[in-house]
Amino acid sequence: MQSTLETISRLHALECSVCRATYSATVLQRTSACCAAPLLATYELHEPLSPAAGIDLHEGSMWRYRRLLPLLDEANQVSLGEGFTPLLPLTSLASRYNLAELLIKDEGQNPTGSFKARGLSMAISKAKELGVAGCIIPTAGNAGVAMAAYCAKGGMRAVVVMPRHTPQAFKEECYWYGAEVHLVDGLINDCAARVRELNSANELLDVSTLKEPYRLEGKKTMGYELAEQLRWTLPDVLLYPAGGGTGLIGIWKAFREMQALGWLPAEVPLPRMVAVQATACAPLWATYTGQQANSQQYVGRPTIANGLAVPRPLGEALMLQVLRESRGTVVPIDDQGMLTGMRELARHEGLFVAPEGGAVWMAARKLVDAGWIGRHERMLLLNTGSGQKYLENVMGQA
Amino acid sequence: MQSTLETISRLHALECSVCRATYSATVLQRTSACCAAPLLATYELHEPLSPAAGIDLHEGSMWRYRRLLPLLDEANQVSLGEGFTPLLPLTSLASRYNLAELLIKDEGQNPTGSFKARGLSMAISKAKELGVAGCIIPTAGNAGVAMAAYCAKGGMRAVVVMPRHTPQAFKEECYWYGAEVHLVDGLINDCAARVRELNSANELLDVSTLKEPYRLEGKKTMGYELAEQLRWTLPDVLLYPAGGGTGLIGIWKAFREMQALGWLPAEVPLPRMVAVQATACAPLWATYTGQQANSQQYVGRPTIANGLAVPRPLGEALMLQVLRESRGTVVPIDDQGMLTGMRELARHEGLFVAPEGGAVWMAARKLVDAGWIGRHERMLLLNTGSGQKYLENVMGQA
Repeated sequence: MQSTLETISRLHALECSVCRATYSATVLQRTSACCAAPLLATYELHEPLSPAAGIDLHEGSMWRYRRLLPLLDEANQVSLGEGFTPLLPLTSLASRYNLAELLIKDEGQNPTGSFKARGLSMAISKAKELGVAGCIIPTAGNAGVAMAAYCAKGGMRAVVVMPRHTPQAFKEECYWYGAEVHLVDGLINDCAARVRELNSANELLDVSTLKEPYRLEGKKTMGYELAEQLRWTLPDVLLYPAGGGTGLIGIWKAFREMQALGWLPAEVPLPRMVAVQATACAPLWATYTGQQANSQQYVGRPTIANGLAVPRPLGEALMLQVLRESRGTVVPIDDQGMLTGMRELARHEGLFVAPEGGAVWMAARKLVDAGWIGRHERMLLLNTGSGQKYLENVMGQA
Repeated sequence: MQSTLETISRLHALECSVCRATYSATVLQRTSACCAAPLLATYELHEPLSPAAGIDLHEGSMWRYRRLLPLLDEANQVSLGEGFTPLLPLTSLASRYNLAELLIKDEGQNPTGSFKARGLSMAISKAKELGVAGCIIPTAGNAGVAMAAYCAKGGMRAVVVMPRHTPQAFKEECYWYGAEVHLVDGLINDCAARVRELNSANELLDVSTLKEPYRLEGKKTMGYELAEQLRWTLPDVLLYPAGGGTGLIGIWKAFREMQALGWLPAEVPLPRMVAVQATACAPLWATYTGQQANSQQYVGRPTIANGLAVPRPLGEALMLQVLRESRGTVVPIDDQGMLTGMRELARHEGLFVAPEGGAVWMAARKLVDAGWIGRHERMLLLNTGSGQKYLENVMGQA
C-alpha cells in the first residue's frame, strides 16, 4: 500500500527471529508463520548515513531517529512527545559507594510516566498506518496505560486486560483515556489467556510484547539515545529491569544497528547487559541458572514491581541471547531490596522511581559487592518508570 | 564570591520590579529592600548572541539556555533533566471544535510531574551556589514536591508546608525525598504564615513564589522553548493557569529578552496572554474586573486544581502588567468545567492532565465561544502538570 510513498525510513522488511525467513513490512504481521516466533524489523544500514544526517536534532523525542524507525508516512505518527529522556549522573550514590561513574536514564519522564510510551507510540503509529481500528493488550500496568493513551490520541478503540491486584492508579488512568478495562485474577500470563478469549474473532490487534514487531522498534530508541547522549561511547555495564524483555532486546538491537551504520566504532565495546528480576517472579534467572530448560511452565508470584511479574516471557530466548553475546548476567532482587533501592534514589538523588528502578540500583550494588562489576567501571541504570502509580504498593514505606 | 570565575552566563544584576533599583546578584537576596517587591534578574542582552551560539542544542533540558540563566558555575547545577517538554498539536480537538491550530505544551513530563521542576531546579542550583544549607516553602503541592526532590539531589535540608487537604500523593512523594512536611488547615497563604513561624530565625532560605529571584528564571525557560519549538514564531493567544503567576510573568520576561536579543524579530507580535483561574479562588479575576483594588484581603476556597488555590499572589501587579501589555484577559473556570476539560484532553488527545490543564482548555473554548479568540488564530495551552498526583481529587470522574 505504501509503494508510491517516498519515505525517509530505511525500513527493509521483517524477519523471523529464529530462522531469518523474510516477511513483508507493508502488511499487518504478528509472529512468524514459520516458527511462531517474534518478527524483527530490518533496515538498509549499509548505504552511508552519518549521525548528522540520520538524526533530526530539532526533534526532542524518540522520533529524532525516524530514519531508523519503521513508520513510512509521518502523517500516521501518533506521538505524545515520548523519548529523549534525561541521562543523569548519580553523584551522591557514586560517592557514597565509592564508584567511579554511575548514571541513570530516567524513563519516568515519558508520557504516561514510563518507558512503555516508546513501544506503544511506535506500535499504535504503525497500526494506524496499516489500517487497524482497535487494539488489545494484556499488561502488568504501564503498557496498558500507554496503549490506552496512544489509542485515544490515534482515535482507536482500546481494550486493556490487567491483573486485579494492579494499583488503582493504573486502572483509573486507563478509564480517563476511555479504554475498556478487564480485570483478571492472576498475573500477566493469565491476562494473555483472557485476551485470546476476548479477541477470538481477531477484531483487534493484539499488541502483546513481541506478538507484533513494532513495540520493539520503539523500545530500541533507548539504545540510540544512550549512545548519542554519551557522544558515541557506551557504559561498561548496563542494568535493566527485565519483565517481558523488549527493552533489553531492543537496546541490544540498536547497538548492533549503530555498529552496522558505523555510528559506534568497532573499538567501542558493547556493555555487559544485566537483566534484573524480582525474586518473586524470576523466570529468566531460573533458566539462566539451569533450574529449568525454559520458562514455559514457570509459576510466578506478585511483587511490588508489577512490571517484573512476567512468568513466561515470549522473548526469553532473545533475552538469553543478549546475555550470552554481551557476557551479561541475571540478578533477582526481593521486594524489601527494591524498597531500599527506592529510598536511596529518592533521598540522595531526588528521583522517585518505580520499584523496578529500585531493583536495578540494588542489583548494581550486589554485583559490585560480588566483584562482578569493578568500582572503576561506568555503570548505567535504566529506570523504567515513575514511582507515582505504584504509591499504593509502597505507601508508608518512605 | 564568583569574581574570579569565568562564566558563560550573561547575568548582569537584580533589579526591583517596582522602582528598578539595582541589587547584586552575587549575594543572597530575597525581595527588594526598597519596595519589598520581587527582584528580577537582568542580563547583558545587547552584545550580539545568535540562537546558534546562545543555545546548546545537545542539551535536552532547560539548561540549553544556560547563557540566559543566572547560574554562574555549572558545578552548582542541580538538575533532574527538567524542561524541553513536548509541544503537541491537538488535532482531534481542533477538528471537533473547528479551530485552525491548537497546541499544548505538556509540562507533566517534567521531573516530579510538573512545571514546578523548572523553577525549583533553578532556585536550588542558585541556593547551592550562594552557600545555602536548607530551604523552606509554602505550597499547594507541586512546588513542594519539586523543592523536596531538588533539595535531595543537592544535599540540602527541605521543609515543606502544605494545606492538610492536599492529595496524599503529594505528601508521600515529599516523604520519599526525605523532606520535613508540615500540614496546615487552610490554603497556601495560611501555609506562608506557618513558614514565617517555622523560619523565624531565618535559618532556611524561603523559596516562596517571587520571594527570591530565581524560580522565575527557571520558569521563563518555557517562553524560550515555545519560541524555539515554533521556530521563532509565537502563538496568537497563550492560555496559562495562573496561581502564583511566575509562569505567566516568566514567559513574558523571556519574550522581552528574546526581543532584546533579536531572536524574536520586531514583526513577530507577542501573544495575548490569558490567565486562567479557578472560580473558587479567582483573586486576579476579581481585581481585573474591578471588584477589589487588589487581592490583599481576598478569601479563596479550595478547588480540585490545588495549584490555583492561591488567594493573595505576591506577583499580582506583575501579572496584571502582563495582561495589560499583551491585551490579555482573565477567565475563571469552575471545578465541573475542569473535569470536562480533563475528560476531553484524555479521551481525544491521550493526555491525562492536571485539573489546571483542564481549566485552560475550557477557558479556550469559552473565549472562542465569546468571539474573543478567532477560530483562525493559533492557540497555545499550557498544561502545568500530570493528572496522576490529583487522582484523589478526581477519582471516579473519568
